[in-house]
Amino acid sequence: LARDEHEALRRTLDSMRIQDIAHVLMALEDDAVERVFNALARGRKVDVFSYLDPHHQHALLDRIAQADARHILSEMLPDDLTALLEDLPRDEVRRLLRLLPFRAIRRALTLLDYPDNSVGRLMTPEFVAVAADWSIQDSLDFIRVQKARGEMANVIFVIDDERRLLTSIPLGRFVMGRADEPVSSLGTEPMITLSVNADRAEAVRLIQHYDLEVLPVTDDDGVLLGIVTVDDVMDVVKEETTEDFHKLGSVGALNLSLRDARPSLLYRKRIGWLLVLVFLNMFGGIAIASFEDTISAVVVLVFFLPLIIASGGNAGAQASTLMVRAMATGDVKSSDWFRLWGKELLVATSLGLTMGIAVSAVGLWRGGPEIALLVAMAMAMVVVVGSMVGMILPFILSLARLDPATASAPLVTSVADVAGILIYFSLAVAILNLPAAGGGL
Amino acid sequence: LARDEHEALRRTLDSMRIQDIAHVLMALEDDAVERVFNALARGRKVDVFSYLDPHHQHALLDRIAQADARHILSEMLPDDLTALLEDLPRDEVRRLLRLLPFRAIRRALTLLDYPDNSVGRLMTPEFVAVAADWSIQDSLDFIRVQKARGEMANVIFVIDDERRLLTSIPLGRFVMGRADEPVSSLGTEPMITLSVNADRAEAVRLIQHYDLEVLPVTDDDGVLLGIVTVDDVMDVVKEETTEDFHKLGSVGALNLSLRDARPSLLYRKRIGWLLVLVFLNMFGGIAIASFEDTISAVVVLVFFLPLIIASGGNAGAQASTLMVRAMATGDVKSSDWFRLWGKELLVATSLGLTMGIAVSAVGLWRGGPEIALLVAMAMAMVVVVGSMVGMILPFILSLARLDPATASAPLVTSVADVAGILIYFSLAVAILNLPAAGGGL
Repeated sequence: LARDEHEALRRTLDSMRIQDIAHVLMALEDDAVERVFNALARGRKVDVFSYLDPHHQHALLDRIAQADARHILSEMLPDDLTALLEDLPRDEVRRLLRLLPFRAIRRALTLLDYPDNSVGRLMTPEFVAVAADWSIQDSLDFIRVQKARGEMANVIFVIDDERRLLTSIPLGRFVMGRADEPVSSLGTEPMITLSVNADRAEAVRLIQHYDLEVLPVTDDDGVLLGIVTVDDVMDVVKEETTEDFHKLGSVGALNLSLRDARPSLLYRKRIGWLLVLVFLNMFGGIAIASFEDTISAVVVLVFFLPLIIASGGNAGAQASTLMVRAMATGDVKSSDWFRLWGKELLVATSLGLTMGIAVSAVGLWRGGPEIALLVAMAMAMVVVVGSMVGMILPFILSLARLDPATASAPLVTSVADVAGILIYFSLAVAILNLPAAGGGL
Repeated sequence: LARDEHEALRRTLDSMRIQDIAHVLMALEDDAVERVFNALARGRKVDVFSYLDPHHQHALLDRIAQADARHILSEMLPDDLTALLEDLPRDEVRRLLRLLPFRAIRRALTLLDYPDNSVGRLMTPEFVAVAADWSIQDSLDFIRVQKARGEMANVIFVIDDERRLLTSIPLGRFVMGRADEPVSSLGTEPMITLSVNADRAEAVRLIQHYDLEVLPVTDDDGVLLGIVTVDDVMDVVKEETTEDFHKLGSVGALNLSLRDARPSLLYRKRIGWLLVLVFLNMFGGIAIASFEDTISAVVVLVFFLPLIIASGGNAGAQASTLMVRAMATGDVKSSDWFRLWGKELLVATSLGLTMGIAVSAVGLWRGGPEIALLVAMAMAMVVVVGSMVGMILPFILSLARLDPATASAPLVTSVADVAGILIYFSLAVAILNLPAAGGGL
């Protein structure tokens, strides 16, 4: 009976794509994961395993037979293996490496030696390279063998005797060439290459900008070390975009799916900014306290407080979001700040005037003409100041070599709040002839 | 002299990549754009033109010779042409179509007939397809001709007599096959295909999920109509991610680079949400006004107002950002809400308690033990309520078939502000035995 079930399971799995199987596995309980994984055809185990998230990979390795673990680790693509190992504690890495054949250990250690977030960590050293003086026929035979071993080979690299990269040629061009001519007869193309120590963001930028399918990676002498492919890059883009979102929401980088993140991790990623921001907001409290006498004299002022300070924060959040995203996509550079500053000032002034007019009607209704004038002026100024804060903060962060995305909506809102409180009550003192600041503290 | 300059310019351009030339062109003034563009080798004009943003394309078409415009439009890849035409006013589309040969007009109109954001708009009908009964040698000859015409052909599609898609085969497999055997001898593979009327987001999802290089698009009868490639998808991802960012910052979708957007457009995209939010914040004002007597009795309460309500908004912004991004990447689905709700409650309670303890110290310093108790309790509750609002709002929007990203940080903050004011002053009334709500309005 159990055997029948096993067979049925296996047939179902055979008809599914590896990505879908991986997806299902990550949603199952530990026992079921093991059972389904063991029912996979041997040849597909490695592929399915490669599509699991690192911590699911880790959990699964602990449960399956050691022979299976060894097989999987030694057959994984080097970049996938690196991705798994770099997230593990050092002891665990050692334990897993002991399962591997010597060649694979050396390869893994070489890749792990490159700095975090470098191209070296992202690339795979599995590519097809031929020598310039081989014949096209010999090259095609060689490519055939390599492809049969599962190497990706839409693009063939041409190297010299010292493995220095000469050019890259699409496989299709080999098909079109004459069999007895040397590879060099296919010509060369201007090539984009990247150093193995470059930041992986640079690989992303090059592949996106030049619509490359594959980017060759070399050392300082031009020796071909590996390739980065467009699907590696899509994963990086997704990861880094998520990081940007989180930063804009003032959450620390998770590097883990929200579903899988433990409460304690989420707590740690959120509490830091909340405490920093509450400290900033204390200045808001101090600002209000210094106008206690003003408030006591005309309590209706407090009615408009949330409207006005929130609007400054909202306009600021809009401005910073626009700026941070434009800087992340390369649409805007630090050098553009002056031109954009002029435009933002114009937009913010228009927004401020519209908002001022809208809120003056409410002012008239709740407090008469003087209050109407006060809230209209305060609103206009606060929207302009908030927008300026939101627009300029990302540039300042970028100049200080920090990530512009740190200019999160909550951070901008907090700064704009303090400014808003000061502007609003100062105007109130001036327009309504009220007792000036000086209470509080 | 002018001729020499022209030659020098041309040589410089010849050594540059088309994407870089397009980038430079978009940064130049109109006159210079025309001059540089005219200096391009004829064969590269189309390619450079395809990499310009639609409104730069449009501006350039108005300035160059009609013969050049006709050449460019008729040589552009159909999906690039569609992208240009769909952003233009109807009259302008008619004027441009008159420049095109009949075949190209029909093709363009066919593609424009598909709904906005459908796969039909995204695909290109330029692919290489062979019949299953052709010999491999004949197919390779055919592929060679197509490739010489510039078609992308790493993947060859196999179709039957009625152009229905049978399978797709990587070019490399043809190279490995025996020349005299029929194409059908290369076997078939399970294939992912997509209907031409599907949403383009579905094409993005499939290509990302299955790491596809190219996705075939068919009609309801399975007839192959076109293909979507991974670089098309990367552009869509970038565009839609930018839209998500803007929504989270409560800015309307721009569809234009921030550098190029006119102030009037930016104004329109921002004023709507600012007005909606100020309306929401009025409830905050009303809430405060209803506690005017409470405030008059203990003015020090106002000191803590910004700290407490801002913290609720910040925690809410964090929660909504995490949720919106996780829903956008497919990491979290609507059905997960209950599980995530429990986790968020746990995290939010921990955050609330930490923040409460932190702020109680300030309360003790500014107002004594009763105030300390009040602000600690208010802070804890406000953080929990804000987080819940931020977490649940995206789910509600998604259930209402609206984009979860509409749960912007400013929207969540505004809702959390109102809740925060009510919680804070209600607790104050209860703990400090103050005059209850009832003033204001």
